[in-house]
Amino acid sequence: MLPIHQYQEQFLLYLENQKIVKEPKNLYQPIDYILQLGGKRLRPVLTLMTAEVFDGNYKEALPAALAIEVFHNFSLIHDDIMDDAPLRRGNVTVHEKWNINTGILSGDAMLILAYQYFEQYEPAIFKDLAKLFSQTALEVCEGQQYDVDFETRNDVTILEYLKMIGYKTAVLVAAAMKMGAIIAKTSEENANLIYDFGLNLGLAFQLQDDYLDAFGDPKTFGKQVGGDIIENKKTYLYLKAIEFSSKEQREELMHLFSIQLDENSEKIETVKETFNSTGASLATQKSIKDFTLKAFETLEKINISEDKKVMLKAFGDNLMSRNV
Amino acid sequence: MLPIHQYQEQFLLYLENQKIVKEPKNLYQPIDYILQLGGKRLRPVLTLMTAEVFDGNYKEALPAALAIEVFHNFSLIHDDIMDDAPLRRGNVTVHEKWNINTGILSGDAMLILAYQYFEQYEPAIFKDLAKLFSQTALEVCEGQQYDVDFETRNDVTILEYLKMIGYKTAVLVAAAMKMGAIIAKTSEENANLIYDFGLNLGLAFQLQDDYLDAFGDPKTFGKQVGGDIIENKKTYLYLKAIEFSSKEQREELMHLFSIQLDENSEKIETVKETFNSTGASLATQKSIKDFTLKAFETLEKINISEDKKVMLKAFGDNLMSRNV
Repeated sequence: MLPIHQYQEQFLLYLENQKIVKEPKNLYQPIDYILQLGGKRLRPVLTLMTAEVFDGNYKEALPAALAIEVFHNFSLIHDDIMDDAPLRRGNVTVHEKWNINTGILSGDAMLILAYQYFEQYEPAIFKDLAKLFSQTALEVCEGQQYDVDFETRNDVTILEYLKMIGYKTAVLVAAAMKMGAIIAKTSEENANLIYDFGLNLGLAFQLQDDYLDAFGDPKTFGKQVGGDIIENKKTYLYLKAIEFSSKEQREELMHLFSIQLDENSEKIETVKETFNSTGASLATQKSIKDFTLKAFETLEKINISEDKKVMLKAFGDNLMSRNV
Repeated sequence: MLPIHQYQEQFLLYLENQKIVKEPKNLYQPIDYILQLGGKRLRPVLTLMTAEVFDGNYKEALPAALAIEVFHNFSLIHDDIMDDAPLRRGNVTVHEKWNINTGILSGDAMLILAYQYFEQYEPAIFKDLAKLFSQTALEVCEGQQYDVDFETRNDVTILEYLKMIGYKTAVLVAAAMKMGAIIAKTSEENANLIYDFGLNLGLAFQLQDDYLDAFGDPKTFGKQVGGDIIENKKTYLYLKAIEFSSKEQREELMHLFSIQLDENSEKIETVKETFNSTGASLATQKSIKDFTLKAFETLEKINISEDKKVMLKAFGDNLMSRNV
């Protein structure tokens, strides 16, 4: 196995050698643009790494890793249209740089391109990968729809919220790992266990995103701290605070999450205090830890050598100790 | 083989038995809505019919036929957003009934669902179908992009126009037929020939659409006669008229195709007269005939019984003698 950063380098090299831009240029240039914007490349790295965890060769996993990354970026383009987002990774979004129609059509083409990258595998593997991919992609769409639906609902439960972030984020992390397992032709049991590992790690990762959005260090956190509070996003922290709060606290919190202000620093401070005083912050931290531990428990059941388990655990610990 | 209308009935029965609407309802209800709007179901019928032309069973072709129809309706939803179209088959479009975000997301889900219907086939057939589908779907996106690009260009050639309508319309007709051939496990040569048959018939079909839009009988033509002229669409008729016209005629035509009027009857009459006097109308009719004949020539090379060739030819003649 290679050190993680080398999987990233190999993936970037592979991406660079793809001839993405062809005719009609107006369709393919936006695709090239978003793929060059960078990002952690977490998902494709997981595919390459997992292939080697199960004694495969990461090189064979490169097309599937690219499919995952192209799909992820497709979902970013269409989500950014839906959220009317001006920026992505510090650069203008595709629909801002071009227009909404370009964002829709180039996004559609990316979804199809993702399937095409699987064509490099033999029929049996191709079918396994495409099936997993379709199921995952549909769940990502469903997660996005739940997210939209939840904006106008006041009775979202913790379980519904976990299902939503599971679909919107964690299933793609899980599928990225399972694809590596499929390509390495490990047992179905191993493939399903690594999927569960990825799913729980993905959930922990997203909950930590919620947590850091409110309590991250402004010096190291990439995004604006308090962004979710400004946008009245009903995250895990909010739902737990509502659950644990007194009647007065609940009414104040629901009021604060129904208004839009020009100056938000006071609102952010008040909401964070409530997150702390109700125990919502601690409950969120506990949940992050629980999902991480659940992932590590699953790891124990996988039929691989101890040093590989240690490596995957270190990867998980590293991901969870991040403050960016 | 069954009479054509029975393939349509069987397809509708199959469609009816699909459980399209599940949770989240806001994602799946728009999909059900567009699929129930009707239409000729030409493409899925071609898949079923072609399977039996090559001695397969139409029942085995039903999932692929549904994939084609779901993809076609996906493209209608996203195209209607891009064209800002209020109506589709006499009913409000998805993005008008719901909103643009719903149109984008439900469309995305349909593209994925289309791939899932192929999962009912064994790996080798699955891969053949999915490959053909991806290539075709990408070409449809490219065709749509060319269509958008051509709106702001004044130097589109006849060949470019034919490539555009080929990608936007004809390749899906061709792929619908080839899928029937793949499922019936006929020879690769037969499968490629029926693809060519469908492609040329699809081109003839689309050119006839252009022709009828200007010269169709208002009593029988489903859409508003002259719609393309009102919208300044540079169709085959227009490009041929520009090619054949004198300097003055060309300038008048280009002027008429640069303005938007409230009252269009005079403009429509003038343009139609120019289409006739320049010989563009005749040239378009000749082109329709040429592509139809090319399709029939291909038919001769296919290794099937004479009665099946007669049937396919009758189907083509019927399609080309339509005035709706």
